[in-house]
Order: sequence, then C-alpha cells, then structure tokens
Amino acid sequence: MTAPIAISMGDPAGIGPEIIAKAWAARTASAIPAFFAVGDERAIRRVWDGPTRLIDDPAHAHATFSDALPVMSVEDGGSIVPGHPDTEGARCALHSLELAAGLARSGAARALVTGPVSKAQLYGIGFTYPGQTEFVAERCGIAGENAVMMLAGPGLRVVPITTHIALAAVPSALSIDLVVAKGRATARGLLRNFGIANPRIVFAGLNPHAGEGGALGREEIDILIPAIEQLRRDGIDADGPFAADTLFHPRARARYDAALCCYHDQALVPLKTLYFDEGVNITLGLPIVRTSPDHGTAFGIAGQDKAEPGAMIAAVLMAAAAAEQRARDACC
Amino acid sequence: MTAPIAISMGDPAGIGPEIIAKAWAARTASAIPAFFAVGDERAIRRVWDGPTRLIDDPAHAHATFSDALPVMSVEDGGSIVPGHPDTEGARCALHSLELAAGLARSGAARALVTGPVSKAQLYGIGFTYPGQTEFVAERCGIAGENAVMMLAGPGLRVVPITTHIALAAVPSALSIDLVVAKGRATARGLLRNFGIANPRIVFAGLNPHAGEGGALGREEIDILIPAIEQLRRDGIDADGPFAADTLFHPRARARYDAALCCYHDQALVPLKTLYFDEGVNITLGLPIVRTSPDHGTAFGIAGQDKAEPGAMIAAVLMAAAAAEQRARDACC
Repeated sequence: MTAPIAISMGDPAGIGPEIIAKAWAARTASAIPAFFAVGDERAIRRVWDGPTRLIDDPAHAHATFSDALPVMSVEDGGSIVPGHPDTEGARCALHSLELAAGLARSGAARALVTGPVSKAQLYGIGFTYPGQTEFVAERCGIAGENAVMMLAGPGLRVVPITTHIALAAVPSALSIDLVVAKGRATARGLLRNFGIANPRIVFAGLNPHAGEGGALGREEIDILIPAIEQLRRDGIDADGPFAADTLFHPRARARYDAALCCYHDQALVPLKTLYFDEGVNITLGLPIVRTSPDHGTAFGIAGQDKAEPGAMIAAVLMAAAAAEQRARDACC
Repeated sequence: MTAPIAISMGDPAGIGPEIIAKAWAARTASAIPAFFAVGDERAIRRVWDGPTRLIDDPAHAHATFSDALPVMSVEDGGSIVPGHPDTEGARCALHSLELAAGLARSGAARALVTGPVSKAQLYGIGFTYPGQTEFVAERCGIAGENAVMMLAGPGLRVVPITTHIALAAVPSALSIDLVVAKGRATARGLLRNFGIANPRIVFAGLNPHAGEGGALGREEIDILIPAIEQLRRDGIDADGPFAADTLFHPRARARYDAALCCYHDQALVPLKTLYFDEGVNITLGLPIVRTSPDHGTAFGIAGQDKAEPGAMIAAVLMAAAAAEQRARDACC
C-alpha cells in the first residue's frame, strides 16, 4: 500500500482546517486518495462537526480515512479563534509544517500538501524564510533559490522567474543565468512531476509587445533571447519571448506546457483570472512532492463556513498524481 | 435617421478589409447598424467576393447597407498584396483614417471605428503620433495625453495608466496627478459612453500583493492611495489599490465597472486572456465616439480567410451603443 499524503494545517485561525475537512468530506465525490492532517485537532473541531480521529503513525491513515479525517496532532495551538491569529497559532503552524515535511522526507508520507500560513504571524515568532517553500526546501537539503514555484490550473501552468520583489526591482533582477536556471528547472519539473517527456516551455517578454524589437525596452534582446538560445542548445523546447498579453488565451495556451513569466503578477494574473478557486502551487526541484492551494489564510472569512475547498482538493490530487509519476519513474 | 458609422479600413494589406466585410456579412445575425468603410475598395475585393458599392456621401450608406457593403473610396492604395504591406498602403491607411475621423467630427458619421494599422509602416511615411488614438484626438482638438484608452470585453473594462513604455520606466512614470487624471477621465467616460451614472472604479497596485504595506514597494503608499483619496474627495467611487492577481476573477469583476492598471500588460493580460477575439478599444475623452478592435493587422494571416471578425463586430456595436447614449444625453 502506498503511503498517505500529509497535509500541514497551516495557521489554525485561518481557513486551512476548514478546507482540509471539506476536502475529506469530498473524498468519494472527488476520488481523493488517503491523506492525514498535521496540526491541532481542535482547530478542525472549531469549524466542522464531522468525524476526526487522532493517529500517531501515518501508516494508520488508510484504515481511518474512509470513516474519519485522520489527524496527527502536534501540540497545543493556543486558544484558536478563527479569524484571530495569535502567536501560539503561528508556532503550531510552523511545527505542523516541520513535522509534515519530515514525514514526507522520510517517505512515511508520499507527498506534502501545505495549508495556508500567515507570513506576518510567522515572522513574529522568528521565522526567517521568505515563505514555506524555502523552509521545506532547506529541510530537504536544497537551497531555497533552487526550489521553483509553479502555479497550475486545469489549463495553464506558469512559473514566475522573480517573485516577491517590488516591480521596480524586476528588470535588474533578471539575468541570463537566472532565466536559464528557471527554464531548466521547469523542464525537468514537468518531466518529473507531470510525466511530460519533451516539455514545451515559453517565455513572456518583460516589456509591452515583448519590447517591439527594442523600441520598448531591451531586456528581451539582452537577456531573454540569449537565455532561450542557451536552453535550446541544451535540447529544451523553449520558445519566445512572446508578448504577455497574447500568451494566455485558449489557443495560445494549447501551444505550451508551461509559461515562464518575468515577474509575479505577469504569472499570477492570468492564472488567478482563469482559475481563482482551483489554482495549485507546486514546488519544482525538491526531492519530495510538495503542493499547496494557491491562496492565503483568508482570516476574514475563517470560521464562517464560506471557504471553498476547490484549490485544496486540486492540490491533493496534483500531489497524488506527481507522487505516482515519480514512483513509476523510480520502479521501471 | 441617425448618421451611419464610419470604419476606416486600416492597412489594406492587413486583415482590416476582411473583418469589415465579414462584419457586414453578419449584419443581420449580429444586429449591426448601418456603417460604411473608408479606404480603397480594391482591398476588400482582394479578400472577399461579396457585394460592395461606392458611395460619395455618408448619407447614402443607409440605402445601400442592406444589399451591399458601402465603401467611401479615398485613393489608390497601391498594389495591395494581403500580408505584404507597402508605402502606398500605409498612405492609404492614413488618408482613410483622416477622412473617417473628419466625417465623425462633422457629424456626417455618428461614430468612428478604426481598422488596424501598422505603426512601423506609418512611421515609414512620416507619421509622428504614438498611434491612431493620438492622431484622432488631435484632429478633434484634444491633446493626445488627454485621450484615455479603455479596453473592454463583455465582462471587463480596463484602463492602462501608462501604455507603450518599457516596464523599467513605469514606476517613475506614475504620479498622483496622472493617476487622478486617468481616474477622472475613466469615471466621466463610463457615464458618457456607457450611461453608468455612478461608476465604480478600482485600481490595481503596481507591486505584487499591492506592495504588502510597503514591504514590496512604496508606489501604492506614495502615489496610488493619495490619488484614490483625491478621487473620492471629488465624489468618485474609487477603491484600491488591490493586488492585481486577485482583481480579475469573476466574483472580483462583479464589484467594479472599470479597473485602472499601472502598466500595459497588467491591463491587457486579463483582458486578452478572457476576451481575445472580442476585445474592443474605446477612446475616452474625445468629442466623438471612437472604438477599434483590440488586435493588430495580423499580416501573417491576411488574405487567407482566417481572420475572426468578432472584435470588429463588437467594436461597431459598442460604438453604436455609445453614440446612442450620447444622443440621449444631448436630447433630454
């Protein structure tokens, strides 16, 4: 029997516990494989009256999963008031993440799905990583900058080449080396996690109309085109740079497996415009499979039974598919 | 009887003539009001075998429209080979635009729809405007910078605050004055052209997560927030700045009438991702109604009967609706 999937609960005052419970409730309708939650069981009880069962070994998740949501408890999350994050909750979120990542690393869980945390809350308890991705990467022995964030919806995969930096800092953050590294990691990640043998990757230009031959900016000529040429020399099916505004309509999307974008909003705007309730963040470049729903803690609606579990369900299903893909590659 | 709509043909070697002819062919199915084309009639004959009829007065368009596509001829467009633009074609495109704009300005046409031109070709014959919009504005006695470009699809209207400049130049191009001016013009334009009495406008932040309180850039704090406060003091229902990536999914779009974006791709990516074949460019701030299909000359497919007329049809229908709105305001 394959190992179950571990889901860290995220901030106990956010919508993480609710969407995990709703994903479990949808296990038959959505054909969701066995998973277990990692966090303070009371966070789930606060917002959901379905059955939960404490387990102390991931191997027990399978036997429990059909009847009750298996929970591996970490520690006391404090008072846990939905919508009102506090220090104890942040500590609980961090310990949940650490335990779940460790279980995935050891193989006791076959993949890691991370619930939403509040970076502001984590920084308040001394967390020094830019986000969960870099923390998980380091726990896996990978430098944070080598973990690549891909956002995926049913008909679109995007990779932002730069992420959480001011827009004014983007042009100088781009380099041929960075673009080539992201392109290679994306191509490798598509093969490894999605089983795409010869992935087609495309690049969006930084400037309007992809610079219009240099008239509207030179980053395409100086950085993107040489990087794409390097990737092609490596045997990667890379194309572009293309004008970003014509790269994401249905006919354009049919022509590639992933689009690499120069900055956060260039990647996230099309993804969330199309797939707001079902976007998944998958980390490429790790020894483990790690996904997460592409949304935040949504403290504003926590505890009101308003949270949509679509992205969490999609994250679990994508994690399962990626884990199966890796197992196939490993066994044959 | 209301005046007909004038459509300048754009570059005769582009897809303009074909989509004008296809729009005429769809006049009954799409309930398209009377229009006439302005340009070299031969450009249409090259790509379409339906009926055309030369007119020398816009007033004759109505009598002709049900049986044949009315064309007001400007001059010899040269050899006209679809897909192969040349100098004569560029001159013809410019003269077509000039005549059609003049007819709209005089009231002989109740609105102007402009077919796609090639800026590179126009620059080659000494055209010095950034685009057709500024040319039309000046012909109407309006400074080009006071004409505001709005892109519209069935469920989204966007206004880029800056347009065709390198991304690196965007942060320094933003100012409180510019943002306020664009906000006012947008609110006024929504009332005047779309009849929206109290338009709700929203602003996208420049930086990821709208700057996250200054952690990811200060333009929201230093420019956008003060500008929005000024607009509110003017009585305009302005809101934001919001994170761009969560501003364009269906539930978010239901909350505003237009979104103002800091740069070209921030506005155009969501619009073209959602409405690639039906996006319309409408110029706000002019004494005349002016729209155009939101695509280019598409020389690569010209003359192959592959061009989709959806955006041209949408541009004509939007021009007609805006002209009717203005006529209602003027008469009561």
